[in-house]
Amino acid sequence: MAPKTRWVVGVDLGGTKILARLVDPATGRAEGRVKAKTPAGPEAVLDAVADAVTELDALAPSGAVGLGVPGLVDRRGVVERCPNIVGWDRPVEVERILTERLGRPVVAANDVNCGAVAEHRLGSGRGIENFLAVFVGTGVGGGLIIDDRLVLGGRGVAGEIGHVTVVPDGRPCGCGGTGHLEAYAGRAGMAAEVQRRVEAGHAELLAEVAGGGPIKSRHLAAALDAGDPTAARLVGEAADALALVIGNAGALLDLERVVLGGGVVDRLGSPFLEAIAGSEQFGGFGPVGLPLMQAQRLDDAGAVGAAVLAAERLGSFVEASS
Amino acid sequence: MAPKTRWVVGVDLGGTKILARLVDPATGRAEGRVKAKTPAGPEAVLDAVADAVTELDALAPSGAVGLGVPGLVDRRGVVERCPNIVGWDRPVEVERILTERLGRPVVAANDVNCGAVAEHRLGSGRGIENFLAVFVGTGVGGGLIIDDRLVLGGRGVAGEIGHVTVVPDGRPCGCGGTGHLEAYAGRAGMAAEVQRRVEAGHAELLAEVAGGGPIKSRHLAAALDAGDPTAARLVGEAADALALVIGNAGALLDLERVVLGGGVVDRLGSPFLEAIAGSEQFGGFGPVGLPLMQAQRLDDAGAVGAAVLAAERLGSFVEASS
Repeated sequence: MAPKTRWVVGVDLGGTKILARLVDPATGRAEGRVKAKTPAGPEAVLDAVADAVTELDALAPSGAVGLGVPGLVDRRGVVERCPNIVGWDRPVEVERILTERLGRPVVAANDVNCGAVAEHRLGSGRGIENFLAVFVGTGVGGGLIIDDRLVLGGRGVAGEIGHVTVVPDGRPCGCGGTGHLEAYAGRAGMAAEVQRRVEAGHAELLAEVAGGGPIKSRHLAAALDAGDPTAARLVGEAADALALVIGNAGALLDLERVVLGGGVVDRLGSPFLEAIAGSEQFGGFGPVGLPLMQAQRLDDAGAVGAAVLAAERLGSFVEASS
Repeated sequence: MAPKTRWVVGVDLGGTKILARLVDPATGRAEGRVKAKTPAGPEAVLDAVADAVTELDALAPSGAVGLGVPGLVDRRGVVERCPNIVGWDRPVEVERILTERLGRPVVAANDVNCGAVAEHRLGSGRGIENFLAVFVGTGVGGGLIIDDRLVLGGRGVAGEIGHVTVVPDGRPCGCGGTGHLEAYAGRAGMAAEVQRRVEAGHAELLAEVAGGGPIKSRHLAAALDAGDPTAARLVGEAADALALVIGNAGALLDLERVVLGGGVVDRLGSPFLEAIAGSEQFGGFGPVGLPLMQAQRLDDAGAVGAAVLAAERLGSFVEASS
């Protein structure tokens, strides 16, 4: 019989790099670190993930693997879509293939959900049983913890808070929908709005600050500091949209805390959280009783969260493979 | 040792009457029926509930009691507020008091949540693991099932879908908030809007149909049939508001089915469901993949749901008290 081990490998599969760590899911402590470039196409990606896991085996045996994927993962661990990885052109049974290959259970999950689990177990959501994490970057993603467990939903895609509608006939969203949160609070949505204004003949300091390139969170922050009214309006609308959706989720789910992270939140910091909490558009019963907190910027949150989630789903009794 | 029994008593505590039944929570089958008038004040109410349970003991021993309450019940079974029962003027530890008195575990829960559990286990939500029930009557209430379990939330008040904001600066809601779903889709909210229009000098067929009294679902249906444009507009706005909120909940929670019930839905029927499903305001990813169904009008759903929920929370191994 295989020896017991407390270690679970957590893998953060990104669009450009792969990071694998040995994680003790009970404490979140991580050891070892294997990095690789993300190759093109699912076969090469699975090879690279398996190699990274095997490399960590030299350090200590692990009983399971958690894999965070930047795409749509269903409840059976099939990666249905993965537009952020070059050449991933079809659904792949990632859990089944890697479980057979690595000789230990593998749990695949959406990377944003892994981030939410990390924040819940080790970050600003610690000890909170009913909790929402919202990550605001290029897009807006989320992860929902109810009664201490990650909510997966019917198909495995729960937490799509970026595609909650805030203005039924509002801005176009990247997904093809209309008026979604992501079109107001995501960086790409804000940049598209600036672009629409520039095309409509309005001079835009924001576009100038960005030097014609893509608008980053630091450009938003710089334009805000320079007193640019467009930046102020965009960020205000982002805060209002987040306030509406977060408050509504609080009313529906009786949440105890909401944690915000991601590039836009990291850059704009507590004034942005205060703008959300103070918004007149706050949904549901308002901000009373629904504390907002900034996410901790945990080291390797994606890899650690993937390992913690795998342990949670498999139960605590994980056997080693060697 | 007490004999095992499959029976759990379910009690539906209403504003005017109390109904108690012996329920087999595995099948939803109910036997016996004790009715009583709801007296004033918590002491008399608890006496009446205890009497009803004891009366059913003559029929068969029961191992537990589930109690649906028309008010705010926290996670420890304390009824914090109960505005629908005359004289209920303070928080009461209903679970603790009745458990001691009846010599078997008692679970108290919000009555709308009990209705959602009944619909999930025995009605239109059967077999659906991720499911929302919305009841549209005087107000709008809901109950949320995730991974086959009722969501209670941090304080025990999850499911308050009536107080999700649809129009941030919209109609006043009975709760003191603004622009909530209930102000658009609840009968009281629609009636208040008619009243505002009458006061603004508009003749209103709806008010006439109701003969100056409160507007009921049948008045809405009759005015719709008569081609009244105000009724059509109000019902259209109700459908739009429901579509926005239901779609958004679907996107956030990856729901598999939404069931609608309550007096307004019973009366307006499938054209109302079709108006919701066809609304251009449908939130999230739209109605695709999110089937809407009308609730079954189950007999004694409140009492049966309370018993089923009690069994779910206590685990299936319930011992009899006698």
